[in-house]
Amino acid sequence: MVHADASTFAQGVTKEEAYQQVLDQAEGLFFEQRNWVCNLSNAASLLWHAYKSLPFPSNQVNWAGFYTLDPLSLSPPQQQQQLILGPFQGKVACQTIAFGRGVCGAAAATQQTQLVGDVAAFPGHIACDGASRSEIVVPVVVEGKVVAIIDVDCAVVDGFDEVDRVWLERFAGVIAGACDWP
Amino acid sequence: MVHADASTFAQGVTKEEAYQQVLDQAEGLFFEQRNWVCNLSNAASLLWHAYKSLPFPSNQVNWAGFYTLDPLSLSPPQQQQQLILGPFQGKVACQTIAFGRGVCGAAAATQQTQLVGDVAAFPGHIACDGASRSEIVVPVVVEGKVVAIIDVDCAVVDGFDEVDRVWLERFAGVIAGACDWP
Repeated sequence: MVHADASTFAQGVTKEEAYQQVLDQAEGLFFEQRNWVCNLSNAASLLWHAYKSLPFPSNQVNWAGFYTLDPLSLSPPQQQQQLILGPFQGKVACQTIAFGRGVCGAAAATQQTQLVGDVAAFPGHIACDGASRSEIVVPVVVEGKVVAIIDVDCAVVDGFDEVDRVWLERFAGVIAGACDWP
Repeated sequence: MVHADASTFAQGVTKEEAYQQVLDQAEGLFFEQRNWVCNLSNAASLLWHAYKSLPFPSNQVNWAGFYTLDPLSLSPPQQQQQLILGPFQGKVACQTIAFGRGVCGAAAATQQTQLVGDVAAFPGHIACDGASRSEIVVPVVVEGKVVAIIDVDCAVVDGFDEVDRVWLERFAGVIAGACDWP
């Protein structure tokens, strides 16, 4: 199979079926490959193409990708943990986000998924793209520490629900165990 | 300005004007940010959205992104230099490519841009995506060594020309100097 076929999702499948395919394809792509940049790059592509195959509102996703723990933020003089942009699909994005700031920073600081139906109502929301109206952010945790977050934005309010939460948390678990983190 | 606006390209501009905007936006995004994953992720997004704003055949680009030198390939037991997938926009892609293999491997091994009008005619072409028909690969060279390649695929034959070569080589020069490489 050529690799691109992994991002081909049938029309008419349920969201659960699309996420199952994301996980199955990811596990195949991650087999004997633990480079985190490589694996997150393919993971972002899988997520993007899954959403584009689904009906409204999932097909309104306008950004899907990752931020990772910025290694430079762990040492002096910064001493404030921050996220740094990782592989993604969509428009250009903010480079760094302090732990605790906005939806991504909240997920990183609390190690809890943030499911935000209307980003305009979220305290301290960072508008990398004014077109984004809802967002889900899921932490990727290894040995009690956040190494990355999955970040997905949608151009309509209430773009995500508990199905997204459950499956993206499963995906975060697969990703956590599949990569050697810096 | 919100970051996403950097990927907004006006319709009706020339290819030269679109590439100029890519370089201008990239230099702004790279200012005081030398993390290579972050910068290549935004660079892939800039390229992708530039192509999508242009007329045929540039709007038929179906993959735009990077491979980098795989650090694991430099030490025993592998001892065969290889590229590993970096940030990109498009469908899932091959994870590793040996120096010398296919269009990407040829660019890495020779440190020369590969402008391939018909990939089916290129010896040893690696079909990550059977839909790709033409390709341009530009090496990113730092102190005489290839640290990465820019790889762009197009779904039609002869998708790229000398304008692409000139501007992507300029972009490779900007990228080479803007990042701390592993």
